[in-house]
Parts: sequence; structure tokens; C-alpha cells
Amino acid sequence: MDSLELIRGLSRPSPTKIVLLVIDGLGGLPHPKTGKTELETANTPNLDQLAAKSICGLIDPIGPGITPGSTPGHLALFGYDPIKFNMGRGVIEATGIDFDLKPGDIAARGNFCTVDEAGLITDRRAGRISTEKCAELCQLLDGLVLDGVKLFVLPVREHRFVIVFRGKGLAPEASDSDPQQLGVTPKAVSALNPQADLMSVVANKFIAQARTVLAKHHPANMLLLRGFSQRPHLPTMPEVYKLKPAAIACYPMYRGLAKSVGMQVLETGAAITDEMATLKKNYTNYDFFFLHIKGTDSAGEDGDFERKVKLIKEADKALPSLTSLKPEVIVVTGDHSTPAMLKGHSWHPLPIVIYSEWCRPDRVGEFSESACILGGLGRVPATQIMPLAMANALKLAKFGA
Amino acid sequence: MDSLELIRGLSRPSPTKIVLLVIDGLGGLPHPKTGKTELETANTPNLDQLAAKSICGLIDPIGPGITPGSTPGHLALFGYDPIKFNMGRGVIEATGIDFDLKPGDIAARGNFCTVDEAGLITDRRAGRISTEKCAELCQLLDGLVLDGVKLFVLPVREHRFVIVFRGKGLAPEASDSDPQQLGVTPKAVSALNPQADLMSVVANKFIAQARTVLAKHHPANMLLLRGFSQRPHLPTMPEVYKLKPAAIACYPMYRGLAKSVGMQVLETGAAITDEMATLKKNYTNYDFFFLHIKGTDSAGEDGDFERKVKLIKEADKALPSLTSLKPEVIVVTGDHSTPAMLKGHSWHPLPIVIYSEWCRPDRVGEFSESACILGGLGRVPATQIMPLAMANALKLAKFGA
Repeated sequence: MDSLELIRGLSRPSPTKIVLLVIDGLGGLPHPKTGKTELETANTPNLDQLAAKSICGLIDPIGPGITPGSTPGHLALFGYDPIKFNMGRGVIEATGIDFDLKPGDIAARGNFCTVDEAGLITDRRAGRISTEKCAELCQLLDGLVLDGVKLFVLPVREHRFVIVFRGKGLAPEASDSDPQQLGVTPKAVSALNPQADLMSVVANKFIAQARTVLAKHHPANMLLLRGFSQRPHLPTMPEVYKLKPAAIACYPMYRGLAKSVGMQVLETGAAITDEMATLKKNYTNYDFFFLHIKGTDSAGEDGDFERKVKLIKEADKALPSLTSLKPEVIVVTGDHSTPAMLKGHSWHPLPIVIYSEWCRPDRVGEFSESACILGGLGRVPATQIMPLAMANALKLAKFGA
Repeated sequence: MDSLELIRGLSRPSPTKIVLLVIDGLGGLPHPKTGKTELETANTPNLDQLAAKSICGLIDPIGPGITPGSTPGHLALFGYDPIKFNMGRGVIEATGIDFDLKPGDIAARGNFCTVDEAGLITDRRAGRISTEKCAELCQLLDGLVLDGVKLFVLPVREHRFVIVFRGKGLAPEASDSDPQQLGVTPKAVSALNPQADLMSVVANKFIAQARTVLAKHHPANMLLLRGFSQRPHLPTMPEVYKLKPAAIACYPMYRGLAKSVGMQVLETGAAITDEMATLKKNYTNYDFFFLHIKGTDSAGEDGDFERKVKLIKEADKALPSLTSLKPEVIVVTGDHSTPAMLKGHSWHPLPIVIYSEWCRPDRVGEFSESACILGGLGRVPATQIMPLAMANALKLAKFGA
């Protein structure tokens, strides 16, 4: 029996509240000059005070050595095995623009690209055309019906778009047309098993039509598809945990993801203080809040150590707005590490703090990577956070007798 | 391959001895006045001395956040995956009264209850009738044969009884008749899959007969059944570990459980000193001893912090009787936490100490929740204790070449 099924059988509703504060890309690496990570560099008296009366530890979003994308990183925090519930690239992009994928829909990620007269790819991103141009081109291709399959073509950002295939008899086991290299032609989509025959036929017909339509739109005179995928069946958080969950997040992808696990996505401003105000305003109506801070991850990806430090300090400063609501359980962590030194997501485990009256505090008095190594939680998979939060909220019945 | 199968292939008999001392409900939570748990409050020089020359850590009986019942808590300590070998309520109750369940038998837990003239439940426990009254009523219902299925109805304690169905064509996937609430009628038992059709038919016939028989026995004028279950096939400890194991425990449930994993259950007095005397007397005849101290758990369940402290001190005082026998391996832990502050079992991991000449001692010099966080074992699932004990007793062959 997997952990989610176990928890589903034990969870029960109760009036206690859980707040999960996710500081995206929280974990870092030491700055070579100081030997301190972004979190260790930032002055965070509120987080440290919380850590002192809480239980701390380190979490691995997927597993030691595995660098998570944002989607599996968050799914793990919500208690879903991120390998079992792996979402294909197409589904992730569709979720990101809040497209309502139906069961059976197949989504793929698309790039507008540039090809030369011989049809060889010269730029996989079509010179990063503007989002407006992307939307215009998508409109030219949107709404086709091929072999009874309806196509949706929707802009994402710059050269990126999503294509969704809706119809009977489709399956996602189709190969990418994107060769992910220059100087070659786009590949034909082929069925990786017989169930995906129609999928590949329709995809290739679409690509052929698109080639004609796009011919006069240099540099975006061709397109590439990858990551044909179907939305996995995710049991929702209300089903599994008997919670009434709400999400406070600005970026479309996180809002889409929260929605797909059954959270109510609240309207909110983008600043941390706005998000805290949203929490306060909606506090009585829900018993679980996922509050997402995005800027830290972007700063890490930009390699901007100082900006990440500054944003962590801002999060710390905003913390009392959260703690003053006195939720029974407070969890502060991230979805993965994004060390400025690496300019990208990384595999490093990240610190976590769980506060409740029943947490059994450890001796950690500082919220940081190095201090949390000695925490009472030890080093645990991120999927164990929800069971722990639920237990600390006294929302889980005993297993066995 | 699961861990039990791996160990079965590596284990070999040897003259070394292992003693597993289980202090039931050992783990606790800090007292708000002192910040110290029951174990941290108790003066335990012998346990601390043992910890100083041993390897320590924290164990999770089932998994982080999961509060274990006593049965899965103990199964995990004996090395059995407590989720895979989950025992239904009926089987646990039958085990508790030492009923010899045969393969194919279905057991259910029963409550005598009170219903009003409309048949609505007014007391799920029939005013907690005496155990004598319970035995008398069970005798009225015992020994029926319905559709070729023989029924055993046996008293447990107060309003509680066990019913066992023995016959061909039975399956345990039958719903409870106990609605677990007042003001409604008992539910009909229904088959959750077609294999359990006969089971539900026989159960409903029994309930109908019982209604007639019990009508004049107010307040115990009806009964409720729940937890239809079958004994899982448990490979025995002699099979898996090549051990000759013995159990020293007073409470029927633990004795029953020990028997079901192939231990010889020894006659013993109830006090810790009696149990130590039993150990000494039988020491040469076995190579594995499970020694169970129950009082600590009961004190925790009663919310009696001081009594739990006192009983931990008593266990500590008795420890030299055990260590003086010089078993090659000594393990001291519990089956789960029972913090007096929570008045019940809890999900918190609990301290463990493993002593052997080959344990590779860590720097922990105190047997407590907070000290064991920093132990050399780290935080591990309880199912890993038996492999570790076996290894430390040099009873496991090398894996691979």
C-alpha cells in the first residue's frame, strides 16, 4: 500500500489548521567568500525563533542526488510520490497556463523555431519571438479538427506554446518531433506503441499544415513538439486528507498545480505582504493553506546571491503576520534548492521546520542548512511532510490496534 | 525482494544471544514545566551507561506521522513490515485471548450494545457490562452452525467479545455492522467483493438470531461486529532468523502476538523483577528473548507523567539483572511513543540503543529522545532493528561475493 492510500484511510476532518509556507528554491550553497549559504547569510530572527520551538530537519524532494523540477518538487510537498505521479512536459505547460485538461486529452509542449531553405533547424527558439507574436501565430493554428480530433494551440511565453489534442482513441506514447539539436530536420512523430497510432498520425498532419501556414512568418517558420502526455489521475487533497485546502500563489504554474490537487486557488497580490494579507482575509474559511513565495527561486536561477538573501529576509519579516494567526501547525520549507552559485535547481536537500504544540522540539535554534542537519526530523523524503503535518494537527487516526 | 526474504537467506544459527527489551510506549513529549520528556526526567544511570558504550538512534514504527497500534508497533520490532502484515481488528482480538486461529478462519471484533424499542443504538458498549455477564451471553451464542459454517463466540472483557467463523468459502471482505455512532440502527453486513457473499450471509443470519436471543438481556440486548479479518501468513522467526526465540510478557495480546511469530511464550510473574527472573531461569534454553514491560504505556495513556517516570526508573533499576547475563546483543526501545501529555499512542519516533561488542559506539552518552537524535543509527524504520541485532550477533552471512 502506498503512503497516500495509508493516509487516506487514517485522515479525518478536524478544526485545526495547517499553513505550509514554501519559499521556492530555498536551499543554497555557501558563498565562496563567506562559507555561508543564502539562508545562512540572511538575518532571519523570526524563522530562527520558530525553529527554536519546533522540530527541524532536511528534506529530499525526490531522492538524494536528484534535481527536481518545480512540479515534482511541489507534488512531493503535497504528499504525492513525484515519480509515480510524474507529469509530462505537455501537461506541465498546459497546467501552467491554467488550461482545463480533460481526461483523455493529450498535451504537448511546442516551440516555434527557424528552419532554412533545406528545412534544417537553425534556431530552436525562433529568435525568442515576442509573446504577442506567439499568440498571433497560435491563433492561426488553433481550432483545427483532424481525423475527428480537435486541436487547441495556445501561447505560453515568447516562442513557447501548448498544443492539446482532444478526441477518441488517443494515447500519449508518441515520440517528440523536436530533435533538440541544430542542423537537422524536425523528426516525424512516431507511435511508441499501437495505441498511439492515431496520435502520431494527427500530430504529423498538424505539423504538415503548420509548415505551410508558418512558411511566410520567418523567423518563426516552423514548430517543434515534445512531451506528449496525459494528466495523471491525482486523488485530490480533500479526498486524501479530508482537508479544505487553499492556495496563495501568483505564478500560473503553481496555481494550476494547486488546482489540480483540489485546492481552492485564492485571488492575491504578488508581494509577500499581499500574500500574507490574503491568508489573513481567508483564514477562517479553510484548514490548509499553501503559501508560495516565488522570487527566491528566480534570484537563484539568475545567480543573484544578494537578491536571494534579500528576499529571504523579506519572507522572514513577513512571518509574524502568519504566526500571529496561531495556526496549529506551521511548516516552512522549499520545493527544492536553487543555489545562486549553480544558477539553477539542484539536488541538495533543504531545511524544513515543523511547528506544533506536539512537535517535540529538538535543539536546533537556527533555520539554516547546516543547523537543520542536527534536527529531530533527521533527513526525510519530502513526501513525509504532509503525514507529519497531519499528525501534528491531530488529524490522523491510529494505524492498527 | 523484501527485507524479510533477504534476511531469511542470510541468517544462520549461532550460539550468540539477543535480548530485546521493549518498554511499551517509551517515547514521550516534554513536560511544559521542565521541557523534559518522561525518559529525560527519569534518572536512568544504567540505561545511560549502556547508551555510552552502544549505538543509539530513533526509530519510526510505521512511518513519520503514523501513530501505531500495539500490534503493528511490535510486528515492526520483530522485523515484519507492519503495513504488509496488517492484522485486522478481529484477528487482533482473537490473538489477545489466545484463540488458535486456523488458516481460513475469519475473526471479527464484537461489542454487546443497547438498542431502544425502535432498534436504534443508545449505548455502543451496553453500559460496559461485567466480564462475567459477557461470558454468560457469549455462551448463549457460541457453537451455532449456519450454512455449514461453525461459529465460536468468546468473551474478551466487559462488553467486548470475539466471533470466529470457520468453514469453507469464507472471505474477510465484509463490511462492519457497527455504525460507530448512536441513534441509528446496526447496519447489515455486506460483501465488499463476491468472494465474501457467504461471509455476509452467515454474519447477517447470526446477527438476526442474536437479536432474538439477547432481546431480554437489556442493557446488552444487541451486538455489533467489526473488523472481519483473516490471520495473515506470518513466516515465523525461527524460519526467518533461524532463532530459538522466547517471549516474556504478561498481557494476553503480546503473548498471543509472540506466539503467532513462532516464539515460545514463557510463564512469568508480572513485575519487572519477575520478568528478569524468568529471563535468568530460561537463559540457556533460547537465543532470542523478547521482554515486554507494559506499565509505561498504560501510565502514558492515563496521562500520568509521574507514574511513567517512576516505571522507567524501575526498568532502569532492573537492567543490571539483564546485562549481568552478558548477552552478545542488547536492544532497548519501545513499540511506539505514548506521551502522557497526549494521553495516548503517538507518531513520535522513539529512542533505541543497540549494544554489542561490534556495535561501533557513537558519542551519545544518555538514553533520551533528544540525545538519540545525534546517534549513529540516525532515524530508521523499526523494521531495520532485527537485521541490525542479527548482524551484531554475527548471525548474518555476507550478501554477494
